[in-house]
Amino acid sequence: MALVVTNIARPAPELVEGLASFGVATIHEAQGRTGLLAAYMRPIFRPAHLCGPAVTCELAPGDNWMLHVAVEQCQPGDVLVAAPTSPCEDGYFGELLATSLKARGVQGLVIDAGVRDVAALTKLPFPVWSKAIFAQGTVKETVGSVNRPLVCAGALVRPGDVVVADDDGVVVVGRETARHILEQARQREAGEAEKRRRLASGELGLDIYKMRERLAAKGLRYVDQKDVPG
Amino acid sequence: MALVVTNIARPAPELVEGLASFGVATIHEAQGRTGLLAAYMRPIFRPAHLCGPAVTCELAPGDNWMLHVAVEQCQPGDVLVAAPTSPCEDGYFGELLATSLKARGVQGLVIDAGVRDVAALTKLPFPVWSKAIFAQGTVKETVGSVNRPLVCAGALVRPGDVVVADDDGVVVVGRETARHILEQARQREAGEAEKRRRLASGELGLDIYKMRERLAAKGLRYVDQKDVPG
Amino acid sequence: MALVVTNIARPAPELVEGLASFGVATIHEAQGRTGLLAAYMRPIFRPAHLCGPAVTCELAPGDNWMLHVAVEQCQPGDVLVAAPTSPCEDGYFGELLATSLKARGVQGLVIDAGVRDVAALTKLPFPVWSKAIFAQGTVKETVGSVNRPLVCAGALVRPGDVVVADDDGVVVVGRETARHILEQARQREAGEAEKRRRLASGELGLDIYKMRERLAAKGLRYVDQKDVPG
Amino acid sequence: MALVVTNIARPAPELVEGLASFGVATIHEAQGRTGLLAAYMRPIFRPAHLCGPAVTCELAPGDNWMLHVAVEQCQPGDVLVAAPTSPCEDGYFGELLATSLKARGVQGLVIDAGVRDVAALTKLPFPVWSKAIFAQGTVKETVGSVNRPLVCAGALVRPGDVVVADDDGVVVVGRETARHILEQARQREAGEAEKRRRLASGELGLDIYKMRERLAAKGLRYVDQKDVPG
Amino acid sequence: MALVVTNIARPAPELVEGLASFGVATIHEAQGRTGLLAAYMRPIFRPAHLCGPAVTCELAPGDNWMLHVAVEQCQPGDVLVAAPTSPCEDGYFGELLATSLKARGVQGLVIDAGVRDVAALTKLPFPVWSKAIFAQGTVKETVGSVNRPLVCAGALVRPGDVVVADDDGVVVVGRETARHILEQARQREAGEAEKRRRLASGELGLDIYKMRERLAAKGLRYVDQKDVPG
Amino acid sequence: MALVVTNIARPAPELVEGLASFGVATIHEAQGRTGLLAAYMRPIFRPAHLCGPAVTCELAPGDNWMLHVAVEQCQPGDVLVAAPTSPCEDGYFGELLATSLKARGVQGLVIDAGVRDVAALTKLPFPVWSKAIFAQGTVKETVGSVNRPLVCAGALVRPGDVVVADDDGVVVVGRETARHILEQARQREAGEAEKRRRLASGELGLDIYKMRERLAAKGLRYVDQKDVPG
Repeated sequence: MALVVTNIARPAPELVEGLASFGVATIHEAQGRTGLLAAYMRPIFRPAHLCGPAVTCELAPGDNWMLHVAVEQCQPGDVLVAAPTSPCEDGYFGELLATSLKARGVQGLVIDAGVRDVAALTKLPFPVWSKAIFAQGTVKETVGSVNRPLVCAGALVRPGDVVVADDDGVVVVGRETARHILEQARQREAGEAEKRRRLASGELGLDIYKMRERLAAKGLRYVDQKDVPG
Repeated sequence: MALVVTNIARPAPELVEGLASFGVATIHEAQGRTGLLAAYMRPIFRPAHLCGPAVTCELAPGDNWMLHVAVEQCQPGDVLVAAPTSPCEDGYFGELLATSLKARGVQGLVIDAGVRDVAALTKLPFPVWSKAIFAQGTVKETVGSVNRPLVCAGALVRPGDVVVADDDGVVVVGRETARHILEQARQREAGEAEKRRRLASGELGLDIYKMRERLAAKGLRYVDQKDVPG
Repeated sequence: MALVVTNIARPAPELVEGLASFGVATIHEAQGRTGLLAAYMRPIFRPAHLCGPAVTCELAPGDNWMLHVAVEQCQPGDVLVAAPTSPCEDGYFGELLATSLKARGVQGLVIDAGVRDVAALTKLPFPVWSKAIFAQGTVKETVGSVNRPLVCAGALVRPGDVVVADDDGVVVVGRETARHILEQARQREAGEAEKRRRLASGELGLDIYKMRERLAAKGLRYVDQKDVPG
Repeated sequence: MALVVTNIARPAPELVEGLASFGVATIHEAQGRTGLLAAYMRPIFRPAHLCGPAVTCELAPGDNWMLHVAVEQCQPGDVLVAAPTSPCEDGYFGELLATSLKARGVQGLVIDAGVRDVAALTKLPFPVWSKAIFAQGTVKETVGSVNRPLVCAGALVRPGDVVVADDDGVVVVGRETARHILEQARQREAGEAEKRRRLASGELGLDIYKMRERLAAKGLRYVDQKDVPG
Repeated sequence: MALVVTNIARPAPELVEGLASFGVATIHEAQGRTGLLAAYMRPIFRPAHLCGPAVTCELAPGDNWMLHVAVEQCQPGDVLVAAPTSPCEDGYFGELLATSLKARGVQGLVIDAGVRDVAALTKLPFPVWSKAIFAQGTVKETVGSVNRPLVCAGALVRPGDVVVADDDGVVVVGRETARHILEQARQREAGEAEKRRRLASGELGLDIYKMRERLAAKGLRYVDQKDVPG
Repeated sequence: MALVVTNIARPAPELVEGLASFGVATIHEAQGRTGLLAAYMRPIFRPAHLCGPAVTCELAPGDNWMLHVAVEQCQPGDVLVAAPTSPCEDGYFGELLATSLKARGVQGLVIDAGVRDVAALTKLPFPVWSKAIFAQGTVKETVGSVNRPLVCAGALVRPGDVVVADDDGVVVVGRETARHILEQARQREAGEAEKRRRLASGELGLDIYKMRERLAAKGLRYVDQKDVPG
């Protein structure tokens, strides 16, 4: 049954702002290496970065009707997340829909399908992470749900979850765990600054992370090339 | 039998000029959502755009001999369209052939295979839409046809058809229907300007296109999140 | 058995310098169209170019531990070449490891897997040729070998082989044959300059390479379009 | 955090029995064309069919440790559903684990990865739906969760959901909706018997489903081949 | 514009019968190595073989409506050839449509998309060559053309062309050239019987086809392993 | 340079016989999880199994000439291993070449490309492991090497290496290490029989392999479903 859920709960603005200062890789690590969308989800231009609450949109293959429905459910700062009910690379989204979303303050689109008018989207600019760039047009015949949980590029996305996307791809943070993940990300980043400084000075990760003993215990051996047989 | 067809008919220059002012997505829509090459056909640099009559070239896998034959059949403004007789990503085309085509006024290449020397091609510039970037060299042993109809990346292309390519991909317009498609594209673009203005002002596609009634008839329902079970 | 080979032999610096002045396509041709890595190996930013001796690193799927071990084996000018023991697109490599490699003077990374932090790597800059861009994190549990021959993206790479990479992809030159290949590349390039000049002036490859007779012998025929049936 | 959830709720046995009498396509249609796993999930031998409650198992790439943990959580009639945290085609599962699962009465395995020993699994027989057949061995180093919701081949699967698999692929039915879906499947099948009889007698779907008027309204036209231009 | 072409011309029955006695590889060779559909088109069961005139059917992605329209245009002995207007692996076709086609004497289906109910289709039996096996259901909303030329899995197929399919895949023979191709196939097969006999007796292809001189001229050299350096 | 190496060294017959009694997965494990060809290498019929010394054959894309040269280098019991110099799925091999190889006592073919006449090959029977089944014909124009080391489907294969193939895929064992690997395989299999018996009796791998303590140390926790939040 096709259902549009209105008035979805969104995360507190300060959580979104906080998460917006981190990249996808950091947030993915901060939540225990979970929440990533598939590697084939690529930005149509680089660099690109966004962070905002998800409005979710289910699409029939080759049919972009529900994107028009979803636009109305978006608020400023939102990220539209759309996925077809079976794999499809058609060009569901182009300049006109981008104009409409931008007029409503939407930050960008994450779509497990194709997008077109990428030259115009680049000029706007309106960032999109997609599976393909493809001019193939779509029909408007079949209804689907908006703001219901869906699987997008292999990841479960629920309305109001926080979507972070950058040149590395897309990650989703659950609304209930956003505060905890933000804290984890901050701690992780704090630790990385010191490590970056030491590595930049030429110190080895082997020593910084004290790996040598454990490597030896796992059986790693060193041998000079002149002593290697064959 | 390998055949080179000479003196192919080309579309009237004003049709080519006319179509050149539109993007791939618009032309694809104007001809009833047909004529697109597969989504994997990507430009080697962006932005890129061209529009011109097709010279077609059939290639054996791993063998670029016929590209040299095809060069001679090209006239200024033409677009060379090449496809292997079975799938192949080898680097059929590079700087030398691009230099030769550019010297003859050819606008660009569409090839359902690989291309190499992309740094040099970008510098020339000589735009190419291809399936892959791959340095793999090819031989010169097997003949094929030039200016015979062929299937390139899933689309039928006949010599003299109009090829339009941009950042979204590649579309082909039949020579006999070019005038009609140009007219359709103009009408479509005219309609879009007004829609773009209204969408940019915040008006919804749902209202502009009067979709609400039909959506309801198809069974779409709205429900507040607090009333959604589970 | 996991083995780190130390003190590997490297090619003479003047050979590396010599090969560095050629592109991937030229070197691939110079060594008889061999040594290319698969077409899916793409640079994370363009333009990019490097040439240096390979330090090789075997990785378990989803486990980047051995990259830390490999860093220590690298010398200024080296290129790190890494491959998983079964196909994997996880993000084995990011900003911290790049910082460490750059501190040691390593030129770049070739990895038959995924990479992350590409915005930061672009800014450094630290060039990487990879199969994917993917933020997916990895563990540090399983040891593998460093500086043992391995198959990377379909090509055999031995420690100390010369790796050349540019916008067209990656090619490997055996250490023992590097001098011969350098000579071949020089000869090839010398021949190409003259051909480029003639092609740029509008002369046809058909005539420069004297192809017409052989094409006819293979059965290629020319026919005017008005004489083509159907 | 790696968590093994014990004592999961399972659907009533009569629901599982009821659903077991239908194929994947019927159940997928009965629940509104939802719940399918990706098309790449194929049975290792045909014909094959099963229906049972899901025990879910999260796997690290190239690491099958958690399958051993999951075995203990299985009861007779269960179906083990496993997915790696990033795409991997390694051979996580073979004859020994199948022997163990079979000893506990488990019906089969659904795994978004590779499987090996397929000759032995065919002989047992122990049905498996997998992404690949691949002998690649795995390690036992990284823990993951058992009986937590996971995305397997693009579909959300929760512990206790009903998994139905046959030669067409795999579908998942939510535990709470299983009774309703069973009823829908029965109604659908009842309707199909009559249609099958009419179609077998040569009656057209166009007439049985009264499609002609709607097709005409959508603009479908009929024309004799002799009147088709060009 | 969606058009159903009626009363298409079909090849003479004796041509179809004649071609039916050859396999796909032989016919493909007989027509100069042309006419093959892509390698991903596989039979749902093996062995399978058919030969008959094509009825062509254009499909919207995720929409099988036009298959019902196409059924009416089929005559006994025909082969239905269907392709979506953009790539789609949904399960357009199953037991009910197969029952309908079989009732009309149709030999089989070639579809550049997915198929379902394969256990039932195997039992009927009703042979299908498809891109995928996938239970994903489809809608009936968008019209397309029947008996118009289309590109199916990379090959141009026109209504009335002869389609031959077996365990190796699918090949298409133009209606106007069918007689010539039949003759070529007969000659080829006649020559192969003798070659098969000689090869079975242990004679080498090198000698039968007199390849040694040409191989040497191309530079092939023989060397004993004990004389190979390195 | 194209070179045919004659009189290659082959492993002792008793080693080949010994290895022939094991499956691919066992041998892969016995040699430290190395030597596997890519997962896409599949047998054209099942069950299939072979074990023998490799004769290697390098092929140009779309050109099967060197297979004829390789036949002459084969001895009874050999396995022909062939790979194109760039990816290609053409049908390099069919019934005639199989007849020739069978006449010389060759056991089977491993080819990183396509094969055709699979119905006839199944009937002979002549087992083939390939990347694709595709009727696409090939030319005979370009020479390559026979019995030189090559990378086939991601694995390095040298002439005289032992190739083992079964329903799980293909693995290669170095000639010099064959005796050691045989010993390892025997030990592994001996250990598995006892484990299989215990698992079949219902004992858990968790207990047989004493995994519980290490799992707990890695942080795995158990919780009853009624105590799981959310």
